[in-house]
Amino acid sequence: MKMSEKWVYLFKEGNAKMKSRLGGKGANLAEMTTLDLPIPPGFTLTTKACLEYYNNDKSLPDGCEEQIDRALAETEKMTGKKFGDKKNPLLVSVRSGAPISMPGMMDTVLNLGLTDEVVEGIIESTGDKRFVFDVYRRFIQMFSDIVLKVPLGKFEKVLESVKKEEGAEFDKDISPKGYERIVNEYKSIVKREAKRPFPSDPREQLLLTINAVFESWNNKRAITYRKINNIPDSLGTAVNVQTMVFGNLGEDSATGVAFTRNPADGENHLYGEYLTNAQGEDVVAGIRTPKSIDELKNENFKAYTELAKTCRLLERHYRDTQDVEFTIERFKLWMLQTRTGKRTALAAVKIAVDMVEEGLITKEEALKRVETRQIDMLLHPMIDPKAEVDPVAKGLPASPGAATGRVVFEPEDAVELNKRKEPSILVRFETSPEDIAGMHACEGILTQRGGMTSHAAVVSRAMGKPCIVGCESISVSYAKNEFRVKNLVVKNGDTITLDGVTGRVMMGEVPKVTASLKGEFGKLLGYADEVRRLGVRANADTPEQARVAHGFGAEGIGLCRTEHMFFGEERIRAMREMILTDNIEQRKKALSKLLPMQKEDFKKFFHEMAGLPVIIRTLDPPLHEFLPKKPKQIRELAKEMNIGEDRLVQKISSLSELNPMLGHRGCRLGISYPEITEMQARAIFEAACEVKKEGKEVLAEVMIPVVNEAREFENQKEIVDKVAKNVMSEYGMKIKYMVGIMIELPRACLTADLIAKKAEFFSFGTNDLTQTTFGFSRDDVGKILPDYIEKGILKFDPFQRIDEEGMGDLIKMGIEKGRSTNPKLEIGICGEHGGEPHSIDFCQRAGMNYVSCSPYRVPVARLAAAHAVLRQKEAKNQ
Amino acid sequence: MKMSEKWVYLFKEGNAKMKSRLGGKGANLAEMTTLDLPIPPGFTLTTKACLEYYNNDKSLPDGCEEQIDRALAETEKMTGKKFGDKKNPLLVSVRSGAPISMPGMMDTVLNLGLTDEVVEGIIESTGDKRFVFDVYRRFIQMFSDIVLKVPLGKFEKVLESVKKEEGAEFDKDISPKGYERIVNEYKSIVKREAKRPFPSDPREQLLLTINAVFESWNNKRAITYRKINNIPDSLGTAVNVQTMVFGNLGEDSATGVAFTRNPADGENHLYGEYLTNAQGEDVVAGIRTPKSIDELKNENFKAYTELAKTCRLLERHYRDTQDVEFTIERFKLWMLQTRTGKRTALAAVKIAVDMVEEGLITKEEALKRVETRQIDMLLHPMIDPKAEVDPVAKGLPASPGAATGRVVFEPEDAVELNKRKEPSILVRFETSPEDIAGMHACEGILTQRGGMTSHAAVVSRAMGKPCIVGCESISVSYAKNEFRVKNLVVKNGDTITLDGVTGRVMMGEVPKVTASLKGEFGKLLGYADEVRRLGVRANADTPEQARVAHGFGAEGIGLCRTEHMFFGEERIRAMREMILTDNIEQRKKALSKLLPMQKEDFKKFFHEMAGLPVIIRTLDPPLHEFLPKKPKQIRELAKEMNIGEDRLVQKISSLSELNPMLGHRGCRLGISYPEITEMQARAIFEAACEVKKEGKEVLAEVMIPVVNEAREFENQKEIVDKVAKNVMSEYGMKIKYMVGIMIELPRACLTADLIAKKAEFFSFGTNDLTQTTFGFSRDDVGKILPDYIEKGILKFDPFQRIDEEGMGDLIKMGIEKGRSTNPKLEIGICGEHGGEPHSIDFCQRAGMNYVSCSPYRVPVARLAAAHAVLRQKEAKNQ
Repeated sequence: MKMSEKWVYLFKEGNAKMKSRLGGKGANLAEMTTLDLPIPPGFTLTTKACLEYYNNDKSLPDGCEEQIDRALAETEKMTGKKFGDKKNPLLVSVRSGAPISMPGMMDTVLNLGLTDEVVEGIIESTGDKRFVFDVYRRFIQMFSDIVLKVPLGKFEKVLESVKKEEGAEFDKDISPKGYERIVNEYKSIVKREAKRPFPSDPREQLLLTINAVFESWNNKRAITYRKINNIPDSLGTAVNVQTMVFGNLGEDSATGVAFTRNPADGENHLYGEYLTNAQGEDVVAGIRTPKSIDELKNENFKAYTELAKTCRLLERHYRDTQDVEFTIERFKLWMLQTRTGKRTALAAVKIAVDMVEEGLITKEEALKRVETRQIDMLLHPMIDPKAEVDPVAKGLPASPGAATGRVVFEPEDAVELNKRKEPSILVRFETSPEDIAGMHACEGILTQRGGMTSHAAVVSRAMGKPCIVGCESISVSYAKNEFRVKNLVVKNGDTITLDGVTGRVMMGEVPKVTASLKGEFGKLLGYADEVRRLGVRANADTPEQARVAHGFGAEGIGLCRTEHMFFGEERIRAMREMILTDNIEQRKKALSKLLPMQKEDFKKFFHEMAGLPVIIRTLDPPLHEFLPKKPKQIRELAKEMNIGEDRLVQKISSLSELNPMLGHRGCRLGISYPEITEMQARAIFEAACEVKKEGKEVLAEVMIPVVNEAREFENQKEIVDKVAKNVMSEYGMKIKYMVGIMIELPRACLTADLIAKKAEFFSFGTNDLTQTTFGFSRDDVGKILPDYIEKGILKFDPFQRIDEEGMGDLIKMGIEKGRSTNPKLEIGICGEHGGEPHSIDFCQRAGMNYVSCSPYRVPVARLAAAHAVLRQKEAKNQ
Repeated sequence: MKMSEKWVYLFKEGNAKMKSRLGGKGANLAEMTTLDLPIPPGFTLTTKACLEYYNNDKSLPDGCEEQIDRALAETEKMTGKKFGDKKNPLLVSVRSGAPISMPGMMDTVLNLGLTDEVVEGIIESTGDKRFVFDVYRRFIQMFSDIVLKVPLGKFEKVLESVKKEEGAEFDKDISPKGYERIVNEYKSIVKREAKRPFPSDPREQLLLTINAVFESWNNKRAITYRKINNIPDSLGTAVNVQTMVFGNLGEDSATGVAFTRNPADGENHLYGEYLTNAQGEDVVAGIRTPKSIDELKNENFKAYTELAKTCRLLERHYRDTQDVEFTIERFKLWMLQTRTGKRTALAAVKIAVDMVEEGLITKEEALKRVETRQIDMLLHPMIDPKAEVDPVAKGLPASPGAATGRVVFEPEDAVELNKRKEPSILVRFETSPEDIAGMHACEGILTQRGGMTSHAAVVSRAMGKPCIVGCESISVSYAKNEFRVKNLVVKNGDTITLDGVTGRVMMGEVPKVTASLKGEFGKLLGYADEVRRLGVRANADTPEQARVAHGFGAEGIGLCRTEHMFFGEERIRAMREMILTDNIEQRKKALSKLLPMQKEDFKKFFHEMAGLPVIIRTLDPPLHEFLPKKPKQIRELAKEMNIGEDRLVQKISSLSELNPMLGHRGCRLGISYPEITEMQARAIFEAACEVKKEGKEVLAEVMIPVVNEAREFENQKEIVDKVAKNVMSEYGMKIKYMVGIMIELPRACLTADLIAKKAEFFSFGTNDLTQTTFGFSRDDVGKILPDYIEKGILKFDPFQRIDEEGMGDLIKMGIEKGRSTNPKLEIGICGEHGGEPHSIDFCQRAGMNYVSCSPYRVPVARLAAAHAVLRQKEAKNQ
């Protein structure tokens, strides 16, 4: 079996589809070879050879060496050169190339095949001593570093001291003599450090290098890169052995990289850089400043024309923007690599839409070309990628975008600064609903505690405001009005910058860039709308958010949290009156003060979303969340309410709970105090009637939260239906409405068949459902999750991405059971997961009707919903 | 359809199996009639007629009146008497009789058929004016109370004033003249209060009474009783119309009740009470103190012998102890009722086992005869026989057990104290059905009046509550809120102790002991062990509890909560040291102090449970539970630990959590601090080795709590296995052990297949699982549950009884998934539900291997597990 395995492929034996076997680079070199492009001949060792190398106690598998020898002979034949030959020596590069690109993570050796003898021969035949020694010393250094593990630093001083002695500014200014000295010094360093002489047999050089490249698959940075990018360790890397061509043979030679379109903005023109008289690594290393590709047109028109032609050909052939490496050896163009060009979010959108309009790709292909996270980036100001940043702390990137402002610790201070149009960053231990005004007024939020779905995270995402949470390395002191991070003390009023994309915190201001929504962006989302089957609604707590969401294409409101409306100054007072009385008449009186305010808000929602469904959730949080916690606030409130401070303290303490998340909240409140549900229902239906009177279509959906039992829902539905009937008869009109539940508890899934007999819709509140399914408190999980992910116990944060393995089954069960008794049941999701692409994919597969997410994620959700359809199609075709 | 329905059955047309249609009383009267026993003729209106009465706008269904008339005519024929006839009038009793006995909850009218004319006729024929008027005034009073709703109190003064005038001590001493005056006064009261004359047509009397008895199905106390006893409201009551016989025709007449065996201790002899020259209600009302049935032997040997014979016959026929009512009318015995005799827990066990040994019933029947809650009662405390007691009064020992509490006189006060978890003793002149809520709320009942079959006695026996009745030496004053006994005044709020076994009343608290498994009790549990398939283990946190559990028959430890061992003074200090350090070395040092203490505890467990499995759970609660909360304690601790108070406060606050139930606890601690799990595993295995060395078999099971993901478990199992291996090699021996998980979170059920690949056992921690499935915090749910149960939203407290409808599915899923990847998986339950019979029944059906419960519930669980098997058998046979 092993005998018959093909470990080595000549370039001409492969093609672009063989990526998993030949790696990306190898497959593309093969493809280009078959396209008759100018590719220096060579061959590829397969990824399987790499895996076998590890299985085989780190040695090449049986038959591999023979196949290498045969391929080498073939390469010699094609080039007319010979390995180790003095007169016409073959030199090769040896490069890694995994099936998924891992740029710079693994090792490469160039100019392999040089020995003292070969060098002498080349000098004889070319007379270019300087060039040959330069190449030789590069080879020795690279080979020693990668194969013999001699640290690069050991060689550093030699080059510098020679340059200094000779007064040479650049490497190319060193004299041939100087290079010779360098080479000799290098060789004695190798002998000293590696305790062996530098190998003088090219075949030995080659075999040692191939082994070393295989080894580099498991170097530390490669492992880390794979972990970060979710690349399986089981892929292995291929190794490409290719005839060297030289961009450093003089001013008629050059080397460079090019993109078939501009990777920054997507404009359709050749884009790239090159260096004259240099080898490829010099461009990447950034030691010399390369020239723009446009200059090549003047310097070497023929080569430029051929390059431009080749690039066009490659783009047409691959039907995507290519990122190519080329070398010009004495006016002759050689292509060394082509691969799909990485691009910015902006470019990705433009290129995808342009290519559709050029007829190059289909709309579906265009959609696949743009990642959802790119859409997300386009919607927020970002730290300028070119800016130098010096982070002082790092937390969880809870809401993307960058923000700069003065540090404040009290929400009131943010409000104060906002009045003076001064930007602020609200820094809190953690936030709570009372901080909402401050959160609204600031530019960005930083908390010491909390996870990706903590209060701060959720609210700031809803606001589209940069936010970093769980920044445990800072230590906030409200008393001192400062936070500390290591030895640094950051005071109230100091300026900091948050990077919500990465979670970095910087002192002072950092330059930012904003991408505006160009025409292509809208077009791309239009393609997505054509493809997707999931509706996309938005979670919005204020009419302003609803407006933003509508602008981003939301097809309704999936969650309006009414309690967020209670935090205005006048409202919280009425709310507190309602909570603090034990007397039902007084409670009703307080509620009647809230009624017109809620009604006004709902009217704005119905106006904004005319003709679209609006889900309004009845009161959800435990009542103690509306009461003050600090002695001073309590004292003030007692005075304001004209009740004894003691009584107030007692009342607050009687409402407090050990585990409020599992406490007296959601429909449990509405069951204890039916008059609250009554008031809210009345506000909804009066608003609906009044808006309808103005000629707008209203589709109201009343959602009952925290239901775990059908009879809870029925209790609340009865109240809503009764109020609806009364209000509609008072106004003399009919309103289309539904009553349904928010599914936040496992038992609601388990008894969904019973609940769905009466409920008209289900909306999965996956934040809370994650809490109870996992037994993780959102507010406390910051202590656990990072450690869990670090240790590999959890693969991701289940508050960010739906846990399909466990909770997914519960959701599917809820959907199946629900539809079993009510086939017309409308099913959606309104947890934070509703804007997360993996989770949206799950929602599509689970057969939901829509997803609902924060306003700024609506475009992301539209694209993700389209992706989900395309992925399902692909899965079906396989 | 309605025309053909049979609403009325003559006694001779029915039998004992027709309880659901004829009610318990009616079915048994029919059965006795077919046995040719001396039963006064009569007929029964069906329960369906009652339901139809309610459906039919509270009037009798079509055809019913005609059927009544026909049955009445048949009864007249059988008795030779005629309704309303002056010469030979038929008088009847009209009694309720539901399918499930609800003693005293509904209404009864006796002596129906009396009118002025009939009375005159009887006086003429018997010459016994006193008797006739006594009967007549009873009838007027009863009928007016029940049918015409004239309050009983309205009649009270008349009787008392006549007695006073005539100087009569008892009712029977009133002169015929006096009775005539009473009757006339009664009739004018009726006319005044009911605004109608007393009906003079016997047929009208009968129809009105039947309606009134149907009405009484829905009186308040009947509804309450059904709620307490889980009797469906949909059953309805039958009505029995039966020829009156008179126990009040003179000294040759009597009426009484008898049990075929002693209902207090189960001894096999005729037991009962009777009153000479009285009607049945007099015995139950407890107004006169009745004589023991043994005296009847002397007073009326023939009647006694016939009664004894009839009782034996009935017991053999029904194969169970009977509770009969009889009347002797001029030496002739009449049976008025038979039913299964209620009995104390003690009696139930003895009777069941005796009957097995007598060959009357099978062991399985014996098991079915004893309710699990009776076993529970037997385990309730009794007065310590060695305690010196100083009784202040002595009454009849109506229901066994000992109880201590504060004296209350009003049922509402008992309810009030119960809310504050304060035990109370309800002291009443006598009790009546209206007192039921208070009787439920108190710990024990003491009445001044009444016999062993008085209301207080019957109800308290059913409730398993200590009760002393007929304690004539006390004198209760509701007005003064006190009772006197000799010179002693006992006030509301004073503490007393009742001994329900002997009838003694003591001041203050008296030491108590709990029953052990001897005699018939042990035999019965032996039968249970033969039948049951579920193992029964105990939850025990201390070696002492393990010892108690073992004594009760526990077959191992299902849950040993190791953290409870950390609260001793020396231990908590080491624990706090461990928690408060940030340094791993210091933490290990603190843990090493805890190691020998834990080891000693575990050794005691292994000793006690040699040869039986012992499940030890690793540390579960969040660490902040071990730290002090009050400023003073914190100050002391800071001093003790020699750290700054500020630092301590900060540390405590950094450990605090918003929702600790969903916080950093269970295996999450063991993952953060592997050294804790290491220490605990070491303590377990060192203990195991040392006990094994002494020649005892050790079966250790290490349980990892709060697991929601297979990799969490694997992380902890690795630690346990490594320590086990090391310790076993240090001691040079092998210990049989398993590592498994506690299933407390929905996700553990959802991913049970993945977890079971490595886990060797599952133990369902249903307390926590209920919390997350429902989203109810155990600590906070007190605000919600009572209201939910009151409103019918939940049918029972899911923390007491497993919620099969919702959580049951999750548990079944966990079991199925678990066994799918590990068929040998051992599965049990260790939540509080493990000792609750309905839940045990579920565990049997769900296919668990064992249940584990608190030590004192082990006998209950043994019986419940047997019941579960029998129930499953029955279900299969149906």
